[in-house]
Amino acid sequence: MSFINIIEKKRDGKKLSREDIRDFITGYVAGEIPDYQVSALLMAIYLNGCDDEETFELTMAMAESGDILDLSSISGIKVDKHSTGGVGDKVTLIAAPVAAACGVPMAKMSGRGLGFTGGTIDKLESIPGLSVSLSRDEFISQVNDIGYALIGQTKDLAPADKLLYALRDVTATVGCIPLIASSIMSKKIAAGSNAIVLEITHGTGAFMRDEESSRDLARIMIEIGKRAGLDMRAVITDMNEPLGHAIGNSLEVVEAIEALKGRIDPDVEEVMRVIIPEMMIAGGKAETREEGWRLAEEAVSSGKALDIFRAMIKAQHGDPGVIDDYTLFPQAPLRSEVCAQRDGYLSVTDCAGIGECVKILGGGRVTKEQDIDLSVGLDMKVKSGDKVSKGDCILEIYAGDSGRAKDAERKFLESIEITDVRPVQNTLIYTLND
Amino acid sequence: MSFINIIEKKRDGKKLSREDIRDFITGYVAGEIPDYQVSALLMAIYLNGCDDEETFELTMAMAESGDILDLSSISGIKVDKHSTGGVGDKVTLIAAPVAAACGVPMAKMSGRGLGFTGGTIDKLESIPGLSVSLSRDEFISQVNDIGYALIGQTKDLAPADKLLYALRDVTATVGCIPLIASSIMSKKIAAGSNAIVLEITHGTGAFMRDEESSRDLARIMIEIGKRAGLDMRAVITDMNEPLGHAIGNSLEVVEAIEALKGRIDPDVEEVMRVIIPEMMIAGGKAETREEGWRLAEEAVSSGKALDIFRAMIKAQHGDPGVIDDYTLFPQAPLRSEVCAQRDGYLSVTDCAGIGECVKILGGGRVTKEQDIDLSVGLDMKVKSGDKVSKGDCILEIYAGDSGRAKDAERKFLESIEITDVRPVQNTLIYTLND
Repeated sequence: MSFINIIEKKRDGKKLSREDIRDFITGYVAGEIPDYQVSALLMAIYLNGCDDEETFELTMAMAESGDILDLSSISGIKVDKHSTGGVGDKVTLIAAPVAAACGVPMAKMSGRGLGFTGGTIDKLESIPGLSVSLSRDEFISQVNDIGYALIGQTKDLAPADKLLYALRDVTATVGCIPLIASSIMSKKIAAGSNAIVLEITHGTGAFMRDEESSRDLARIMIEIGKRAGLDMRAVITDMNEPLGHAIGNSLEVVEAIEALKGRIDPDVEEVMRVIIPEMMIAGGKAETREEGWRLAEEAVSSGKALDIFRAMIKAQHGDPGVIDDYTLFPQAPLRSEVCAQRDGYLSVTDCAGIGECVKILGGGRVTKEQDIDLSVGLDMKVKSGDKVSKGDCILEIYAGDSGRAKDAERKFLESIEITDVRPVQNTLIYTLND
Repeated sequence: MSFINIIEKKRDGKKLSREDIRDFITGYVAGEIPDYQVSALLMAIYLNGCDDEETFELTMAMAESGDILDLSSISGIKVDKHSTGGVGDKVTLIAAPVAAACGVPMAKMSGRGLGFTGGTIDKLESIPGLSVSLSRDEFISQVNDIGYALIGQTKDLAPADKLLYALRDVTATVGCIPLIASSIMSKKIAAGSNAIVLEITHGTGAFMRDEESSRDLARIMIEIGKRAGLDMRAVITDMNEPLGHAIGNSLEVVEAIEALKGRIDPDVEEVMRVIIPEMMIAGGKAETREEGWRLAEEAVSSGKALDIFRAMIKAQHGDPGVIDDYTLFPQAPLRSEVCAQRDGYLSVTDCAGIGECVKILGGGRVTKEQDIDLSVGLDMKVKSGDKVSKGDCILEIYAGDSGRAKDAERKFLESIEITDVRPVQNTLIYTLND
């Protein structure tokens, strides 16, 4: 069947067969189908959608366009954790060593940040010397030895997704649930775990703007994973304001280390209380959320979680001294404070805008190839609903120079407001009963 | 505004501004916007549509992407006639010299055939020596001298349409009314006439399959033309069977010459009785259709229409001897007859299939660059509703070789049926009251 017929089918709202989808992905990766035909199909998919079966087939075709990681030489249930991204989202940084400390082998492959969201790989690279490029054998032995390894996505991981993502980015076809779901799940399936705990974010600081679309995305991702034989769990979280207080690569690692030392912000803890137990249940290390959280608290209070984080840093050639001396992280030359301009209650009106501040400071990417400054970022001194008085310090900016600091301050002030009436608090956690 | 924002607008069902459309067409013609972005926009237009204003702006931007022919040095109202294409449609070949004989200056620019439809330019090129490449000045003086000239589209005519058409052809975005209308009308507006008579075909032998979509297409084309300041007239005709009896380039010219000699098939005459008077009313040479048709009949019976056709051939370096000796046309080496396989009433079930027979014989194009055999074609001995007996000759095939003749015969027999009950006759003419 020619590719034009495949475009026509989807254009006319018909269902693509497994064979159509395989021909599409194989032909595109082989360079036999030109971008201009694929972009017409992507727009037809954007507007006419895909059903569960098509989305599953698309995911599998993309996953199988490259290598599928074989983690069978790691004993135990391999649990992956994925977040659809957010601002200040350091959940993986904290949850992975805690789950590992509780006996769940963590063979993590993570991405870099793009746009207003950060990426776990960038954050960890702020630890001097730490390498996220391990060979397959090094990766597996490290998980077997210390229970935790974290690497960047290899170039052979779902190459079809890389091509499609780059094309979607320039053809206004990014924000489409079947395409988002298949993009994420193809990489997760290729990464070889047995179970996946999804943290699906929604709100002004996430790609999904409302609860309904985040539920749709969660549902289809669970469906895809189940069809692929994986144990799937999903938690929907609110991302209408940054999670925790630090936003920016090294600053978030510091906040994560503090959490592993037992000092954790209430909103971060609220998310952890669901995510970590789900990971432990999936990994067969707890029966209930209560049991999972009790074990997680023990892993932190005993120092075991921090030990595993330290061992991972050491094994990946990083300087574990950062754990006790935060000045070993790259330091921003300039710190400036932002003060409340009036009395009232703070509320974040545009969480992505706060993520943009980090980009303005040079700590986030505009293009995929860009180098970023890992030292810069924001430290929020107050959160939505907190009462402030005129002149109070509400934010500390870590910047490379005063020009960028000023631009970030302006953007930050556009992204919040201070009102007389206390804003309604957002519900932070929506568990999905699959 | 970046082109991604323009794609997003149309993707989300919003209206493109005049400026958006100008940026799109100018940028695409300049090579600044890549095909893969344009094809995403084309699919968004296909699925979300364009309103009248957007379609008009798109038409004008395409028309103005190249030269606009200035016909002001031809006196009188310049009337153009356009058909959306069909099988055996020789209306332009007959109507143009008749209208010219009645004093309507015919400065015609026509296209070539593609797919199952023929093109006026290909048909006329079957006259030995005839050239359709005149300079602008030659073209205008010929119209001033003899009242009629017919040329192919110049490469500077609406270059944006050429680029977009080629991209639509490979991205399944051809059959979209705003894109069809703007493609046709951009060329017609650039061709410089004051009035246009449209013959909008529908049925199994046309691009529009039903009356409703042909009415939609007619309505928007009239609207575009009026906004551009043109006098617009449209006639909707049925194309569920070929018009007249000949299908194929030289064969259709012979049929047209016969008509100019006064021997015309009833269905062709029925279309002429509407099209020619509309051209004459638009050209200010008749007040009513009745008057227009009376003058047309006089132009034929007096031999004046044929004289003008002869003068046009001579002026364009063709051999006018073809008018009296049809053997001067390129001759197909092989003629074969197709017989009725049973008693009954003939009906054409797939008119495009009959057009395809000419393509099989080598007389139609699969790709734009292809050379075609102008001698081959079909001569239908019976039409839908005619009674036939088993063994009667129903078709004569003009072919280059017996293999192709056999293939064409097979395709023809798939495109008709002979039934016991006389088929319901299609209404041939639907006039559009604009």
